[in-house]
Amino acid sequence: MPDGKKMKRNIKLLLTYDGSAFHGWQSQPDRRTVQDVLEDAVERLTGCRSGVCASGRTDAGVHAEGQVANFHTTSAIPLKAFKHGLNSLLPADMSVLDAEEVEYDFHAIGSCKEKEYEYRILYSSTRQPLWRKRAWRRAEHPDIAAMRRAAGHFTGTRDFSSVRASGCSARHSVRTITLCDIRREPVFSGYPADGFLIVVRIAANGFLRYMVRNITGLLVEVGAGRRSADDIPAILEARDRSVAGITAPAHGLYLKRVIY
Amino acid sequence: MPDGKKMKRNIKLLLTYDGSAFHGWQSQPDRRTVQDVLEDAVERLTGCRSGVCASGRTDAGVHAEGQVANFHTTSAIPLKAFKHGLNSLLPADMSVLDAEEVEYDFHAIGSCKEKEYEYRILYSSTRQPLWRKRAWRRAEHPDIAAMRRAAGHFTGTRDFSSVRASGCSARHSVRTITLCDIRREPVFSGYPADGFLIVVRIAANGFLRYMVRNITGLLVEVGAGRRSADDIPAILEARDRSVAGITAPAHGLYLKRVIY
Repeated sequence: MPDGKKMKRNIKLLLTYDGSAFHGWQSQPDRRTVQDVLEDAVERLTGCRSGVCASGRTDAGVHAEGQVANFHTTSAIPLKAFKHGLNSLLPADMSVLDAEEVEYDFHAIGSCKEKEYEYRILYSSTRQPLWRKRAWRRAEHPDIAAMRRAAGHFTGTRDFSSVRASGCSARHSVRTITLCDIRREPVFSGYPADGFLIVVRIAANGFLRYMVRNITGLLVEVGAGRRSADDIPAILEARDRSVAGITAPAHGLYLKRVIY
Repeated sequence: MPDGKKMKRNIKLLLTYDGSAFHGWQSQPDRRTVQDVLEDAVERLTGCRSGVCASGRTDAGVHAEGQVANFHTTSAIPLKAFKHGLNSLLPADMSVLDAEEVEYDFHAIGSCKEKEYEYRILYSSTRQPLWRKRAWRRAEHPDIAAMRRAAGHFTGTRDFSSVRASGCSARHSVRTITLCDIRREPVFSGYPADGFLIVVRIAANGFLRYMVRNITGLLVEVGAGRRSADDIPAILEARDRSVAGITAPAHGLYLKRVIY
């Protein structure tokens, strides 16, 4: 490397975090956020502050098993030092699963082709301490077949205004959901058999604010018999948030993976 | 009920707790324990302090999905009020899954026929924040077939002195292990595929102190290639704690169920 000239590098990180103690991804003054904690660690490692961009700004309480972020740096430290070095600097509720060097124009949001989320609903008549902050507990007994039929109505390219939060800043509300399914899982390893999990899995080319949580809210209402699965097409066609239902809480939501 | 005469009742509770913030089951001065928190709640509900006895005194950090406990009371409150009333008084990391009225001589320890524990080992090259305090992380790649062979050597009626903690107060060290197996599970729902869980399941008619954690320690050493599965019979026959290996940490251990 010639004197005074530094190589520009673009580092892509695969991240996992327990969202419970973070006020979401996005940097905020006087709040503990994933972005701030990560940027602090990058600054300590490289000696320079870099802006870290994520595939999406997870809300307060939302977890990530496979968030992707990137940042530019002129640091010459070896690639593997980014993973191990950052992990030695990051707190226990966050870690770097992988680090790779990518093309300079790779951008965690802009280059993203598809993202996948999971929403975990714990159906249990009693509190389950080992699932608190990890799943949304519901006490009713759900009609899972009806939830499956409802889930089928969300796939495809549609205007998702009805499941978009009022404060959402996206310019367009058309997205393509490639996958929306439901599976039943035991609570931990099965017994005592008080309760089970319903896992809603949704993949799309992009998500509007609260989209997964609002879709989950509708699925839960269908499961509880307060709405019919057949109501979903009309709710989506209305393109009006006020006709849709409740917003599922943040702590049941997991960002699973991002595809480029 | 005649005046001045109160019915003596015996209440059996099915409990679950996240052990992370408890200093174990057993009452201790100036420490937060499961027993003290539960006895406080029973006292608030019934107006009288009752001693609550568990099927076993879980150590600090150990979780329970199906702990059983009982207490005697002369309170006349309806049975279902025990479950809902206690849950309204208990903190978020503990809950009553079920309450039933049992014979007056039922005793959570003395009447116990079998208990089952699970130990969760997270094999992952990186920290997994969503599994911290829930599983023991190991970075090596284990020989699972060797671990399975080793597990097979623990079943049967044996003297388990070699896997008994030095401070164990049990009079005898012979126990019957009816089940000791190993299964592989994905971390959460599978991808990103960094790591997997090995779940050790052990059922016995009784357990010595640290017995599951010491057996797990041996299985992990076999998985890492530091011991052979064929060494297990000789280790048990030695009846000597010093020939066995490491003690697995408390936070990977779950009391699953108790059979009467």
